[in-house]
Amino acid sequence: MDNTAVKEWIYSQETQAVRLLQKLIQEKSVRGQESKAQAVIIEKCREIGLQLDIWEIQKKDIMNHPFYRCDRDDFSGNPNVIGVLKGQGGGRSIILNGHIDVVPEGDEAAWNVDPFSGVHRNGKVFGRGATDMKGGTVALLLAIEALKATGVLLKGDIIFQSVIEEESGGAGTLAALLRGYTADGAIIPEPTNLKLFPKQQGSMWFRILVKGKQAHGGTRYEGVNAIEKGLEVVKRLQDLEKKRNENVLDPLYGNIPIPFPINIGKFESGKWPSSVPDLAVIEGRIGVGPHETMEGVEKELQYCLEGLSEKDRWFEDHPVTLEWFGGRWQPGSIESDHPFMEAVSEAYLEVFDSPPVIEASPWGTDGGILSKGGNIPVIIFGPGTTESAHDANEFIEVRKILQSAEVIASAVIKWCEVEYQ
Amino acid sequence: MDNTAVKEWIYSQETQAVRLLQKLIQEKSVRGQESKAQAVIIEKCREIGLQLDIWEIQKKDIMNHPFYRCDRDDFSGNPNVIGVLKGQGGGRSIILNGHIDVVPEGDEAAWNVDPFSGVHRNGKVFGRGATDMKGGTVALLLAIEALKATGVLLKGDIIFQSVIEEESGGAGTLAALLRGYTADGAIIPEPTNLKLFPKQQGSMWFRILVKGKQAHGGTRYEGVNAIEKGLEVVKRLQDLEKKRNENVLDPLYGNIPIPFPINIGKFESGKWPSSVPDLAVIEGRIGVGPHETMEGVEKELQYCLEGLSEKDRWFEDHPVTLEWFGGRWQPGSIESDHPFMEAVSEAYLEVFDSPPVIEASPWGTDGGILSKGGNIPVIIFGPGTTESAHDANEFIEVRKILQSAEVIASAVIKWCEVEYQ
Repeated sequence: MDNTAVKEWIYSQETQAVRLLQKLIQEKSVRGQESKAQAVIIEKCREIGLQLDIWEIQKKDIMNHPFYRCDRDDFSGNPNVIGVLKGQGGGRSIILNGHIDVVPEGDEAAWNVDPFSGVHRNGKVFGRGATDMKGGTVALLLAIEALKATGVLLKGDIIFQSVIEEESGGAGTLAALLRGYTADGAIIPEPTNLKLFPKQQGSMWFRILVKGKQAHGGTRYEGVNAIEKGLEVVKRLQDLEKKRNENVLDPLYGNIPIPFPINIGKFESGKWPSSVPDLAVIEGRIGVGPHETMEGVEKELQYCLEGLSEKDRWFEDHPVTLEWFGGRWQPGSIESDHPFMEAVSEAYLEVFDSPPVIEASPWGTDGGILSKGGNIPVIIFGPGTTESAHDANEFIEVRKILQSAEVIASAVIKWCEVEYQ
Repeated sequence: MDNTAVKEWIYSQETQAVRLLQKLIQEKSVRGQESKAQAVIIEKCREIGLQLDIWEIQKKDIMNHPFYRCDRDDFSGNPNVIGVLKGQGGGRSIILNGHIDVVPEGDEAAWNVDPFSGVHRNGKVFGRGATDMKGGTVALLLAIEALKATGVLLKGDIIFQSVIEEESGGAGTLAALLRGYTADGAIIPEPTNLKLFPKQQGSMWFRILVKGKQAHGGTRYEGVNAIEKGLEVVKRLQDLEKKRNENVLDPLYGNIPIPFPINIGKFESGKWPSSVPDLAVIEGRIGVGPHETMEGVEKELQYCLEGLSEKDRWFEDHPVTLEWFGGRWQPGSIESDHPFMEAVSEAYLEVFDSPPVIEASPWGTDGGILSKGGNIPVIIFGPGTTESAHDANEFIEVRKILQSAEVIASAVIKWCEVEYQ
């Protein structure tokens, strides 16, 4: 099929796409505040003419699933949104999934622009969520609208999903799966910088409680500083990360400096400058390879922490406590020669006149829930860049949104097939 | 003068003293919540028959004093309390000063008792503030009441002060000084474990802001972790502490493992387990020797932090920021042969039949404000122990409260002199 009309339509919509992305960024959809950004999505889905399913997640509907791991009880007012474009029948279906939640903006002083302004400058749109992944969601909607606007009649269904909770472990996508939404393939436009990721790293959040002994700061030698003990734990985690990444042979990780990082995301200790703190709380995430199980990695970290007492007797009588909480992303993978990979790769080749770069994702996505939980082949492919995600001055190139929309539209045509009339 | 009657009266009041201390501990007088514990003090002062002066500190009255350093704007509802026992005239006056504020209880799990219960067991009373310094305040009130009850008529005035804000830099004692309260000597019964401290270490609170660079945890190598950079700052502070304590020759510091400690009291960084944090905030206190100036020590710490870039180029482009905030205690000292030291030492000798142990305090007190700001000779002498201060399971021995009350009553008699009728 000749996709010229689809392509031309997409490129004619640059101004509208930028405006939609700006509106999405301007609604600060951090955890628990997703409703206004979802309202923008709903409005757009209505405009395109998708069949909407808007619902508030009920904890009881998902909490018994083995992949459920969520420390949020109340989802009221902040719905999941699904928009379906029914096909004519007889074709393969596709899920196009994006998450609406964004991580907090961090230290505002590090931003050169208001993180929720959506400034458009030099072909880039700036703001928290631009790259992770409201830009990707705009690409999905642009692709779907292009197919609709140019009169392409698909055999298979498109199931567009705008989910909450991805940044906290995927309760949104899990809820969509358990509501019955499945498909023959799924694309998630997380920031791959237009690379194809058939493998996704999983990850888990952990919390480590480190004990000290209180004392007055003026006689700090009478106490044991939990901050100093916490530093030993940080060093131990750094060593474990090194060990876990020494012998990764999978060529898809060839360009990735640390395939399965351990990130120390939070260190909190002490309440009073003149007191020796007696507790340090360390939170972070540990990457899980597609070849690993969550349980195996849990044991490895536990074992690593038990070794703390070898170098410091303090930990013998005061062992640290390891907790698994919040976010938990299953790893996922499909073979590089899977038909779905072939369809998306061909679409890429058509658009760029060169084959795609294929790598493994350095982070967890909701893809693991779809593939491990729903047996759906998943490919991560999107316009943003990992470097910009979660960073200050997060941005996305508008050009890449349009390019990825073109690839996705073309891939949908190949996968879902066209009904010629 | 024969102090037998005073002594007997003090020892007859053990039950009442314990009860008063328990009532004080049960009122959780952390910063901003001092009013109920002050009400207990006020009631007791009324009972003894002291002339009360109860007032709320006005920031404008003290904020222009060079020793003012306070990040609290609102003192309303939480007064300073002074109770005066006027002498007959012609004698030296004395300030007996105790602070009513306590530091937070810390990790409650580390306590074997409710930190605000005031449990009395095996001759000890337990709870936050028992040793620092509600036990000392009870000793002061016991000494004053003993003099009153046994009909001792002093020539000089006793000015009893129950102040707020000591743990945060001394705004309470500064306000009392600027309200006009001065004297020929002052005893502060901070926890010296019945030793005499004619020299007091000063201290200052500092805050260090350490920059990183945000990134997604899955590609943490794209960012710079502020926690890791913060650890380098902690190490640097540890080195500075070592250097500053290498050549302390003053024999009064002979038994103190670290005469002028640098305490890291707080380390906070990061908000999200899957993000690389871009800011770490470190708070602590640095000890200031009686031979040093605050300004000199400020410069030394600043210079030390500037050296961070020698080992790590990151700090060259991202220097840390040093702030001086909150608590600030002037160092203080009087000569060991000062007449006031002689009076208190003689009182001690009478009670214990052995000379007092004389040391330098390992922590700052409000004494520096009285001595440097009011030219008042100050001695720190109290029943608590430094080890127990700011710690979980803080306690005080009841016996020592009674002993210190006896020494203080006797010292007051020597210093203020008795009017024989």
